[in-house]
Amino acid sequence: MKNQVQLITYVDRLGGGDLRALQALLTQGEDNPLRGRFGGVHLLPFFHPIDGADAGFDPIDHTRVDPRLGDWSDLAALAAPESGLDVMADVIVNHMSSQSPQFLDYQAHGEASEHAGLFLTLDAVFPDGANEALLTAVYRPRPGLPLTVLPAGDARRIFWTTFTPQQIDIDVEHPSGEAYLEAILRRFASVGIRSIRLDAAGYAIKRAGRSCFMMPETFAFIAAFSAKARALGIEVLVEVHSYYRRQIEIARQVDWVYDFALPPLVLHAFAFGTAGPLKQWAEMRPRNALTVLDTHDGIGIIDIGADAADRAGSPGLVPPEELDALVEWIHRNSQGESRLATGAAASNLDLYQVNCTFFDALGGNERDYLLARAIQFFLPGIPQVYYVGLLAGRNDLALLQRTGVGRDINRHHYTRAEIDERLRADVVRQLLQLIELRNAHPAFGGQFELLGSGDTELRLAWTHGEHRAELWVDFKDPARHGLRFSE
Amino acid sequence: MKNQVQLITYVDRLGGGDLRALQALLTQGEDNPLRGRFGGVHLLPFFHPIDGADAGFDPIDHTRVDPRLGDWSDLAALAAPESGLDVMADVIVNHMSSQSPQFLDYQAHGEASEHAGLFLTLDAVFPDGANEALLTAVYRPRPGLPLTVLPAGDARRIFWTTFTPQQIDIDVEHPSGEAYLEAILRRFASVGIRSIRLDAAGYAIKRAGRSCFMMPETFAFIAAFSAKARALGIEVLVEVHSYYRRQIEIARQVDWVYDFALPPLVLHAFAFGTAGPLKQWAEMRPRNALTVLDTHDGIGIIDIGADAADRAGSPGLVPPEELDALVEWIHRNSQGESRLATGAAASNLDLYQVNCTFFDALGGNERDYLLARAIQFFLPGIPQVYYVGLLAGRNDLALLQRTGVGRDINRHHYTRAEIDERLRADVVRQLLQLIELRNAHPAFGGQFELLGSGDTELRLAWTHGEHRAELWVDFKDPARHGLRFSE
Repeated sequence: MKNQVQLITYVDRLGGGDLRALQALLTQGEDNPLRGRFGGVHLLPFFHPIDGADAGFDPIDHTRVDPRLGDWSDLAALAAPESGLDVMADVIVNHMSSQSPQFLDYQAHGEASEHAGLFLTLDAVFPDGANEALLTAVYRPRPGLPLTVLPAGDARRIFWTTFTPQQIDIDVEHPSGEAYLEAILRRFASVGIRSIRLDAAGYAIKRAGRSCFMMPETFAFIAAFSAKARALGIEVLVEVHSYYRRQIEIARQVDWVYDFALPPLVLHAFAFGTAGPLKQWAEMRPRNALTVLDTHDGIGIIDIGADAADRAGSPGLVPPEELDALVEWIHRNSQGESRLATGAAASNLDLYQVNCTFFDALGGNERDYLLARAIQFFLPGIPQVYYVGLLAGRNDLALLQRTGVGRDINRHHYTRAEIDERLRADVVRQLLQLIELRNAHPAFGGQFELLGSGDTELRLAWTHGEHRAELWVDFKDPARHGLRFSE
Repeated sequence: MKNQVQLITYVDRLGGGDLRALQALLTQGEDNPLRGRFGGVHLLPFFHPIDGADAGFDPIDHTRVDPRLGDWSDLAALAAPESGLDVMADVIVNHMSSQSPQFLDYQAHGEASEHAGLFLTLDAVFPDGANEALLTAVYRPRPGLPLTVLPAGDARRIFWTTFTPQQIDIDVEHPSGEAYLEAILRRFASVGIRSIRLDAAGYAIKRAGRSCFMMPETFAFIAAFSAKARALGIEVLVEVHSYYRRQIEIARQVDWVYDFALPPLVLHAFAFGTAGPLKQWAEMRPRNALTVLDTHDGIGIIDIGADAADRAGSPGLVPPEELDALVEWIHRNSQGESRLATGAAASNLDLYQVNCTFFDALGGNERDYLLARAIQFFLPGIPQVYYVGLLAGRNDLALLQRTGVGRDINRHHYTRAEIDERLRADVVRQLLQLIELRNAHPAFGGQFELLGSGDTELRLAWTHGEHRAELWVDFKDPARHGLRFSE
């Protein structure tokens, strides 16, 4: 990947248009401050349909562009060298929509369907029956069992559904599952997509009596699938939220990971006026990471908390009482909006993610927001900026109320007029300058250093020959900070 | 039970007061039109607490009155002969709250808890493991599996939860379960409660490989529990929603059942201008029934539909296309409010209940509403009138929006001022007259006749010596109707 800032966006929520309109927004216009600003763009799911139960992550047809957005030739134009944008797209490896033609056929014909092997059933995973020990051994990203009862043929079957009842898990080891996923890769390669994000890949492999999450067999699957992608000229980013030590292990075994611990640690630094956990992480964090402060999902909590399986023996990056207080701090900063969007858990420590725009998580403080972005851009890795964060966007309570989907609080639909207005805002203009420096300054092609500093301070530097870039923040009083670039 | 109309009400939603205030509302005041109007009152759950996840049906302590409502001495006063009201109360036999001291103790100490046998686990029901055939054989009142994962002791256990994850099913066959339920009966008997409603009793017994719903073992359990109640001077009403033929079988084996087919059949008669299915039902329906048009739950759909297990071989009281149209007719009559409260199902035929006040289900037509009540009062059985129906209440969208609980659309909190205002409304005054006639007219102590009439008409009569009461409705044009009582 190019060592430049990437944009994460839905095709239709940044200007309300299609693929061509998005390409124009990012590549055309003399006075357009977004033109040429990004080295790449991660297009959130653009498959048919983009408005399913999980905002595109439950495609009915993964090899078809939603016609409201355009077609594959538009994708090819956006991914062409002239646009200057490397395109990343999602491969949803774990599951497919319960409304897909394949699943509907299986429901209609049962075992006589040609797709009978494509979907994972309870009996397939537990041929000798399931009991409490087997079922509770399964690692879960959300409460409840990963099982959904649906009719298929003349019977009611119990399907493995890791996420929602509308997302039926695929048997990725079955020849039908393999063929299905390979067809997606070939389709992507044919239009010049340069990298893929493996959505929820950690859950792809199931074994009775085991966690069914990031097992050696899962790594083997990811490695094999990545090899197929690379053979087609495609790099692979693996999306996994988990305990930070596990995340480090995972990073050793795959091409690219997200640094999901970063957003909550940056917030923690501002909340507690200390840089300790952030610096601890900066020393050990994987370098083959895409850095983020925000994505289409929430702000990760499990990424810095203790290992849920062994809270005492495997503590997190921040102690439990501080993690609890951090969540409350975010809720307070957002005037309680994030609490509405996040819902109740027995304890904040059981939270998976907090739903809130990153700007609102910082209470709309522009200085702190820009410092947070500077920290993101200075840490080794490829920075990604989510479209709402690019515009320093606020929580969208109206959308949340309309859909009842917590994450929609951070998935605003921007009109062109709103974009133009936001691009004139000081905080956005300064963020665009910061992006430009990160993309163009030669220091970032050199050596990174985490410099020594006091407990409340963070000091980061890049050096390349005579070029140098340096960032300094004192979280005890963030008015005390510095950002210096050599000429 | 006395052959008089009973009221169904929450203690605190009819006037906003406690048990004493409710007793005053129903028994005191010279000009009080509610005084002496009812032969009995079914008090919806008044246990600690009344505001859990299922509006009192998930008590933490079933033998304690919620202190906001009063105490057992207030209950005894209401149930005393001077008040003239026979009190019915709920025994929630199937489950108890996940916040009950018993369950919390089990969670804290696991198998070492003295309550370890009280709660049903997956392994207890399926000692050899569960598979798809075993799990899909279980009859379900709602989608999904009846299983919830929760920590207990050092392990995570999988509990049987027929309804919500907050309602943990009891092992009613275990000595701990028996002792728990018997303590409730004794407490009720000690304050003079005359009848109990067995909530969700059809689900109380579980057997691997079977439906776990109204099996012979379930009837045996209900019979044994009823015998214990009768020995304490308590009559037993069994609450079951099911296919109408099964409902008739159930009625043969228990003291009292609800006539849950009546509300949708009355609506069907008005919707289609025909009395056919209603008369068919009137001929075969159980006589040991409490008749209702409304309760704290929704309007039953499965009660008149085909048997879900065999739609072709076991058709319902109305054909599927008419059942579908009936649901749409209710939604239209309520200006779409009932659709908001009922939620989406793949098909209207899969609906369990429609949430709507009965008055709104009839589009607020006062004449039709009073005719519907007259039909209810003329059919053999003991009529119950729900407090919202008593006041010809409208849907409470504000409460629905506040709680997100569909059934709350028909669970309005009436202030005293609202009650006084409603009691002056024509429709309510006429309903109270009808109740008075049903309670006092001697004909209703005699013989019932379903008289011959045309397809669009219903004609019902009661005769006792020289006393006679007669009701006639032509659903094709309900303006054509008659209601005659001998002097």
